[in-house]
Amino acid sequence: MSIITLLTDFGTADPYVGELRGVLLSRAPGVALADLTHDVSPGNIPAAAYILGRAWSQYPAGTVHMVVVDPGVGTRRRALAFSLAGHHFVGPDNGVFTGLPDLEHADVVELPVLESAAPTFHGRDVFAPAAAALASGKDLSTLGPPIEGSLTRFQMAEVRRDERKVIGVVVYVDHFGNLVTNLTGLDVTGCAGLEVSGQDAGPVRTTFGDVPPGGLVAYVGSGGTVEIAVREGSAARRFDAGVGSRVRAVFS
Amino acid sequence: MSIITLLTDFGTADPYVGELRGVLLSRAPGVALADLTHDVSPGNIPAAAYILGRAWSQYPAGTVHMVVVDPGVGTRRRALAFSLAGHHFVGPDNGVFTGLPDLEHADVVELPVLESAAPTFHGRDVFAPAAAALASGKDLSTLGPPIEGSLTRFQMAEVRRDERKVIGVVVYVDHFGNLVTNLTGLDVTGCAGLEVSGQDAGPVRTTFGDVPPGGLVAYVGSGGTVEIAVREGSAARRFDAGVGSRVRAVFS
Amino acid sequence: MSIITLLTDFGTADPYVGELRGVLLSRAPGVALADLTHDVSPGNIPAAAYILGRAWSQYPAGTVHMVVVDPGVGTRRRALAFSLAGHHFVGPDNGVFTGLPDLEHADVVELPVLESAAPTFHGRDVFAPAAAALASGKDLSTLGPPIEGSLTRFQMAEVRRDERKVIGVVVYVDHFGNLVTNLTGLDVTGCAGLEVSGQDAGPVRTTFGDVPPGGLVAYVGSGGTVEIAVREGSAARRFDAGVGSRVRAVFS
Repeated sequence: MSIITLLTDFGTADPYVGELRGVLLSRAPGVALADLTHDVSPGNIPAAAYILGRAWSQYPAGTVHMVVVDPGVGTRRRALAFSLAGHHFVGPDNGVFTGLPDLEHADVVELPVLESAAPTFHGRDVFAPAAAALASGKDLSTLGPPIEGSLTRFQMAEVRRDERKVIGVVVYVDHFGNLVTNLTGLDVTGCAGLEVSGQDAGPVRTTFGDVPPGGLVAYVGSGGTVEIAVREGSAARRFDAGVGSRVRAVFS
Repeated sequence: MSIITLLTDFGTADPYVGELRGVLLSRAPGVALADLTHDVSPGNIPAAAYILGRAWSQYPAGTVHMVVVDPGVGTRRRALAFSLAGHHFVGPDNGVFTGLPDLEHADVVELPVLESAAPTFHGRDVFAPAAAALASGKDLSTLGPPIEGSLTRFQMAEVRRDERKVIGVVVYVDHFGNLVTNLTGLDVTGCAGLEVSGQDAGPVRTTFGDVPPGGLVAYVGSGGTVEIAVREGSAARRFDAGVGSRVRAVFS
Repeated sequence: MSIITLLTDFGTADPYVGELRGVLLSRAPGVALADLTHDVSPGNIPAAAYILGRAWSQYPAGTVHMVVVDPGVGTRRRALAFSLAGHHFVGPDNGVFTGLPDLEHADVVELPVLESAAPTFHGRDVFAPAAAALASGKDLSTLGPPIEGSLTRFQMAEVRRDERKVIGVVVYVDHFGNLVTNLTGLDVTGCAGLEVSGQDAGPVRTTFGDVPPGGLVAYVGSGGTVEIAVREGSAARRFDAGVGSRVRAVFS
């Protein structure tokens, strides 16, 4: 049984995700559907890229990952399918795949958009049929011609390092208000403490339980980078911080 | 493997949907469950009818669609099961099936409500067992006697057409605030522009990307009828409009 | 095909549930995943216990129930797996299993926490691998050594009964604002009426439809205990009540 993961900004209140599931189950009978999430904020490409970048590798080889965070749907942005590291990916060429490793080595095809496709719902009419075809064992090359040029990627924030400090940024804020940064565990090894937007965020600890309720806690998170949280609270609110906020590791 | 779709107003925070899934998986081992949505606003029968009417036909023949938007649960409203166009449907006789075509041709049975059924949870105790039986290949006629009379349907708003204008209404508002109308593409072919509640909504375009962020955009939506949206915003808020608001296509 | 149910406080907006699903589908190919809910309020152990206590027995024998409401993740609280009544359970030793019957008869093992497990995500790195192993038919005893002592349970509120009145409490508030109490149908048989926090809540009826919209309605709920609701409204708001609020059945 093959697997298709779904990652969209459609929300779950409307008919849209149910229609996607119907197309996938009709065209790939027996496939297992696994939601990554449908609650990406509308059009938030960096959030989709972060979520896909974390979750895809937990799935077995052969999984098809369908991403429909697609504010440019119906315009000239390309529709893509490609294979990478034994997994398949389907989605718009707008940067949602930026979080994948070795993207430059992927064989990528451009999906044709038929006249009959609804210009506002390529998820249902372009991407789901392609995902179902791949899950059913169809060869990538049958879905469309190789693309020309490279995929769209957004510039990921880089970490700046010198002898006395390391400076990164918040790259994702989860729904608890935890601030996920691009600083690795190595970046903060031996540091005296962290600052978020110039405000003290304390030393690096291990887990939430290391501080009392309401306390600030920084730790190397489950995605492999430093996070700053408030136990039973919101670090985003505490620091009035969001994606792009500066996080500094200070060495004494 | 057969499929059961679920459409409820139970939300996803409480035990109720998990209990439904347990009953279905216990009684129809191996069935695939597919959520249409659980986030219909409580008791909103027209919204449930719209969602079912859009999504059901994306599923393969043989699918069982279970609808539990049922404000009259435990009263004398009838519990139904029927087959139509190769699909099966289970739910209360309160109008939730209004969006299906050729409803008058359906063979419908009335599900008995056992003494042991919880009067507030027929989803678990009446509809799920019936859905599981149908998904397991049981014949409809074994589930209950044919109903007398016809199914409950609500009156769907009609489009009024004359030479100079076509007048429809908003029939659904999605969680983005997009206004879905009952005007077809044909209704607006050649029109100079649209009005919502008497306010200008611009010409009919193709997709969101045709206007800048914050711009108004009308288009023939993926459900086959005209929609009015604000790109990266809410048309419902912009026009203070909702289900029943008047939408006029003006011809010059 | 075996089944794994998921019960967490992770929400559905972030990568976390998608990562769990990936681990489960990778390690137990072909397993059916069934969400109980991911919307338990963060760290709300009594709510998780109530939801699990209601839903688990709807699933077939052999089902694995994975609970990750785990505010003490990464601290010294124990990670558990056990079998009870033909079902398997995996989760932290913090009281989330309090709603299960005969818990004292369960054979319980302690799951080892590997060095490589993320201290903030035992759901992915400890509980999901154990759940997948059980779903794949691995013997419980292979997962870890028997625990010493007993499981953590929180004190469940007891009903106080005398000749003229029965006093219970609200044990769960659902997202509609319905107040679920610990009073059984037997407790209120023949009672003249109910009070919530000293305010009149009317007599015990059968279902929502017994009162007009906006009306107060008490009934024996689908979980087997008395509930107080406002039809098309919120009893929690009406009474300013929550978990622990006193509910009294008055006999005349």
